Amino acid sequence: MTKVGAIASIESLPHGSLLLRKSAEKAVLAPALAAYEAFVKAVSALEIKDDASVIQLVGAFNAYRRAAIPIFEAGKNVPQENLRSTMMEELYAWLFKDIFELLEIDQPLNFKLGKSTSSYVSLTFAPHNFASIFNDPNPRIAKKDQDFAIGATFQLTIQPEGGESPIKSGILIPIVAIECKTYLAKNHLDMCASTAASIKTAAPYCMYVVSAEFIKMDKGVFPELTDISEIFVLCRAKNGDRKKRRDAGLPPHDIHADLICDLFNRVIGHLRSIWWDPDSALKSGRVIQRPF
Amino acid sequence: MTKVGAIASIESLPHGSLLLRKSAEKAVLAPALAAYEAFVKAVSALEIKDDASVIQLVGAFNAYRRAAIPIFEAGKNVPQENLRSTMMEELYAWLFKDIFELLEIDQPLNFKLGKSTSSYVSLTFAPHNFASIFNDPNPRIAKKDQDFAIGATFQLTIQPEGGESPIKSGILIPIVAIECKTYLAKNHLDMCASTAASIKTAAPYCMYVVSAEFIKMDKGVFPELTDISEIFVLCRAKNGDRKKRRDAGLPPHDIHADLICDLFNRVIGHLRSIWWDPDSALKSGRVIQRPF
Repeated sequence: MTKVGAIASIESLPHGSLLLRKSAEKAVLAPALAAYEAFVKAVSALEIKDDASVIQLVGAFNAYRRAAIPIFEAGKNVPQENLRSTMMEELYAWLFKDIFELLEIDQPLNFKLGKSTSSYVSLTFAPHNFASIFNDPNPRIAKKDQDFAIGATFQLTIQPEGGESPIKSGILIPIVAIECKTYLAKNHLDMCASTAASIKTAAPYCMYVVSAEFIKMDKGVFPELTDISEIFVLCRAKNGDRKKRRDAGLPPHDIHADLICDLFNRVIGHLRSIWWDPDSALKSGRVIQRPF
Repeated sequence: MTKVGAIASIESLPHGSLLLRKSAEKAVLAPALAAYEAFVKAVSALEIKDDASVIQLVGAFNAYRRAAIPIFEAGKNVPQENLRSTMMEELYAWLFKDIFELLEIDQPLNFKLGKSTSSYVSLTFAPHNFASIFNDPNPRIAKKDQDFAIGATFQLTIQPEGGESPIKSGILIPIVAIECKTYLAKNHLDMCASTAASIKTAAPYCMYVVSAEFIKMDKGVFPELTDISEIFVLCRAKNGDRKKRRDAGLPPHDIHADLICDLFNRVIGHLRSIWWDPDSALKSGRVIQRPF
């Protein structure tokens, strides 16, 4: 299996590596692999363009989750753990695979979908000394990791005027960023709030979403004071409930399809909007038009 | 007359245009032009490398000031007004003309000294919409004007990966920035404080100095809370005193040479320092080494 819509290749997905695993892990992972193959087969055939197809996708994903999570959560600090924490990253890659067909735009060469390690935050300069600044201004190109991003990639070049040795760095300008947490606790929220603030300074039209399956927070937190566009609690449950079910050998909570539909529609609405354009501002009577 | 040390050409200086003026203005400006020519002749012969030569430079400058200021201040909203407000910019170009000889460094091609309209502050992105971001991420390269700067110029390029149409912009990374005010009032201080904060975010090793000839501020201001490295009051007088002398037909206050020596030595010390270098931090036991 290779490319599906905007997905570079199935092997590049968080759970695509299941298809490549052999030997020692195979026995433990076999039921998860079988469930993943069934999931991939089902959703590769879908065109994700409306609520009905999103609901089908979430249904197939919940089936995969029910088979795989008990296996992924059985061990600690083993490769399976990493697979557990990337469940949602896997879903989002499938959720947005058909955006170019839906928006009727050709997919550009510098389009990127998936995990990002180079989301642009800021460019500053800390030269070593006067003599060296002219050839090497020591740029600090700050970048953030993101669990899932939709964005455009660029090469940033800083070239001394009249000189010959440019400094180059690849950056992603995120349009949608999704931070994925199995459960959201206060310290995670603080980190997400800090990332949201720096991302929105650099790219104010980036939609920044926190996707949590569960939450573990009390009244002493203030998500409304952050730059986070929305926090979804996809299982509509507390982390304590997750553990109770797990310890009782019960199947995990399902992801609620209506929340994924809402996220999908908000993202598509964002991708269809005009963000910043003085002429449109005159027509619409609104200048800033923030994502939401 | 053309290049003198690090000065690109005398005609490029704020008051160099005096040499080119003809006809109508000539009669009014004649005594100022004569004084400027005497000043240029005297200081072109100086090597500005120590306190003694700085004191000679300031002496020659004060002689020019005494002849020129009564003429420059006689009119309002005429070309002479602009000459009055750029007296100090003129001095600083001469003050730092021999820094490369003094520091024993070859002058690089991308060295810049004088007025700046492109001091780099920040790079952010405000794309118009999803379809256009891939070719045009609409970068906002924020730049500040500075009355006088010592810095290095670079070309900043943003190129779509795999694409062909780069976006280019010239920037100056300032090493020393001097804001020149005939007199410093509260609203000027607020603007300087805002500029200092944004410049130091982008280039933390930039020395940011406010050069005022006079002040017009009371106790209700808080310069110590700003990122301004130092504010000099070069005439050690209030703006009210300046007006009293002018209205009485007395010569203007002189610039105090000891303050220019102090500024000169601080700048040279800054240009001789190591700014950011993990290895030197181990030797010196100090990591940040701010300008002052």
